[in-house]
Amino acid sequence: MRVAILGTGLIGASIGLGLRQRVSDVQVVGYDREGDVLERAHRRGAIQEKARSAQEAVRDADVVVLAVPVLAIQKLLGEIKDHVRPGAVITDTGSSKTEIMRTAREALAQHPGFVAGHPMAGKTDFGPDAADPDLFEGARWVIAPSVNASEEAIATVTNLVEALGAKPVMMDAEEHDAYVAAISHLPMMAATALFSLGRASEAWPELSALAAGGFRDMTRLAGTDPAMSYDIAVTNRENIAHWIDRYIVTLQELRRRLMDTESEDDFYKLLAATELEYGQFMAGKVGRTEEGDKQPLDIGGSFQDFVAGAWVREKFNEIMKDSEERLREMDSRERSERRV
Amino acid sequence: MRVAILGTGLIGASIGLGLRQRVSDVQVVGYDREGDVLERAHRRGAIQEKARSAQEAVRDADVVVLAVPVLAIQKLLGEIKDHVRPGAVITDTGSSKTEIMRTAREALAQHPGFVAGHPMAGKTDFGPDAADPDLFEGARWVIAPSVNASEEAIATVTNLVEALGAKPVMMDAEEHDAYVAAISHLPMMAATALFSLGRASEAWPELSALAAGGFRDMTRLAGTDPAMSYDIAVTNRENIAHWIDRYIVTLQELRRRLMDTESEDDFYKLLAATELEYGQFMAGKVGRTEEGDKQPLDIGGSFQDFVAGAWVREKFNEIMKDSEERLREMDSRERSERRV
Repeated sequence: MRVAILGTGLIGASIGLGLRQRVSDVQVVGYDREGDVLERAHRRGAIQEKARSAQEAVRDADVVVLAVPVLAIQKLLGEIKDHVRPGAVITDTGSSKTEIMRTAREALAQHPGFVAGHPMAGKTDFGPDAADPDLFEGARWVIAPSVNASEEAIATVTNLVEALGAKPVMMDAEEHDAYVAAISHLPMMAATALFSLGRASEAWPELSALAAGGFRDMTRLAGTDPAMSYDIAVTNRENIAHWIDRYIVTLQELRRRLMDTESEDDFYKLLAATELEYGQFMAGKVGRTEEGDKQPLDIGGSFQDFVAGAWVREKFNEIMKDSEERLREMDSRERSERRV
Repeated sequence: MRVAILGTGLIGASIGLGLRQRVSDVQVVGYDREGDVLERAHRRGAIQEKARSAQEAVRDADVVVLAVPVLAIQKLLGEIKDHVRPGAVITDTGSSKTEIMRTAREALAQHPGFVAGHPMAGKTDFGPDAADPDLFEGARWVIAPSVNASEEAIATVTNLVEALGAKPVMMDAEEHDAYVAAISHLPMMAATALFSLGRASEAWPELSALAAGGFRDMTRLAGTDPAMSYDIAVTNRENIAHWIDRYIVTLQELRRRLMDTESEDDFYKLLAATELEYGQFMAGKVGRTEEGDKQPLDIGGSFQDFVAGAWVREKFNEIMKDSEERLREMDSRERSERRV
């Protein structure tokens, strides 16, 4: 299998390294706009061949992985569409999906191979030197097939995700964007605001000297590569704004309870309940169900189960139906206001 | 030197372990209300003797360290005041200081040995099993002497802090509380709100399954021991509420700029500038000065320099003056509204 990775930063290089370590007979060709990034990915062993252009990289590839920021993915789709093999499978790792699906619908209208993806893993360090073949081990990896994606294309991307140790999760693009706005994009904005607030204070010299682990952890996401955070922000604006509003309401309520000297017991109970729930979350409990119950989102089992499994088939049909409906809605310029 | 540690959880046990490893001829006696916590601290080697009560622990001690949550510190001060030796030095590790100083002023009015402290280090894990003799290495440790503290008492606490590898920082209690509200207590509230928001969402089953490192880092402080977070909250209410308000304003401004499709360039610049400043902060730059300049808060050098150094002497006199003024203000029931 020949895999072309466009964008050989942290995510692209980690995919390359992971595939080379975990899949036999794989040939990985890479391309990056930055010659230096491409060179370092090659030296790191993440790719075997360096292409001189995106077009050259995808020419003979069975699978094409677009591992660049969201706006660059949209641009690349236009650049490669006339150069990919007819049977090639195309996937991406972008952090927001609705805009990418919209572009793909136009650019790849005649191509049955586009299956979008988003690995729910990463770290603040970027670049191929930070690449890790085990970066995706145990992480969820959202898969959002295009409306005209073939079953073979979906199977190929699911296998690739599982080969990297991740757990595939089927989801449609708009659902994905609403969820990640809450658990990934809002935290990024919250960290940016928290760091900016301290940095802008007249007392910053003292604050920065006193700041310990808590502040550093809480502001880590303010160190996100701006090329990535900007693309996320402008392609998922409405959802992020919605969650910032809800976050502000939650902060106001917490402030009200903090200042309510008549109900200190309730305030203690609130903090204790949150700590308890956080402990359960960190211990691996997801959702509100008891341990051992069917967990949400888990496809579970092998890809064979996945293809054969009735509930996954249902979920898949549902997504496809939703997507078609949404397509019609969009065509009539009605953006759905679906919110989590 | 005989040191009594009251409260043998993470901080108390780390102090005990650190002193035993770094100071010769030290004898550490411990007491904890929870017999099991005391027993585990003993087994961990953090203390050599187990006392059966706070009073018994402090009886012959040269130095008494109160390493419990803030409200418990206030209570303990009353319990030990008639049992400490006249020459004993008393310090604490509480996360807010104004209320503790107020209690100490009354309980220890005749005792010249109270010098409050706050190590700017910690981790979410609690209990003596998580104790680490190097927990304070390189961390700032705020020292706030009581109005009637002797120079010997201040010297003893400063030496203890330096022996543990931390950097002592002189600060008065109200100044401390205003600063830590921004860089420690607000992050705690921000994390609690962020986790609660996700947890309360109908989509929590999906959100919790998708949540990756960013969300976990951003909500880590929601896992703070509620006994600690509650005490902090109710003893530093006004300052925390003030910073929550400023945080909300910052979030609103960030939201406005996110939604401003006319000024996308400016939004990119904002994210890029924040990322750059965050990188400098994490690389160890504090304040707004260039590397190599005099850093704020650093006492610098040995304790001898500290005693001899003119600027520290000035700073110390200033703190003492401020404290006396504040004392008069408080007596007239005028709470100062000092804010950072």
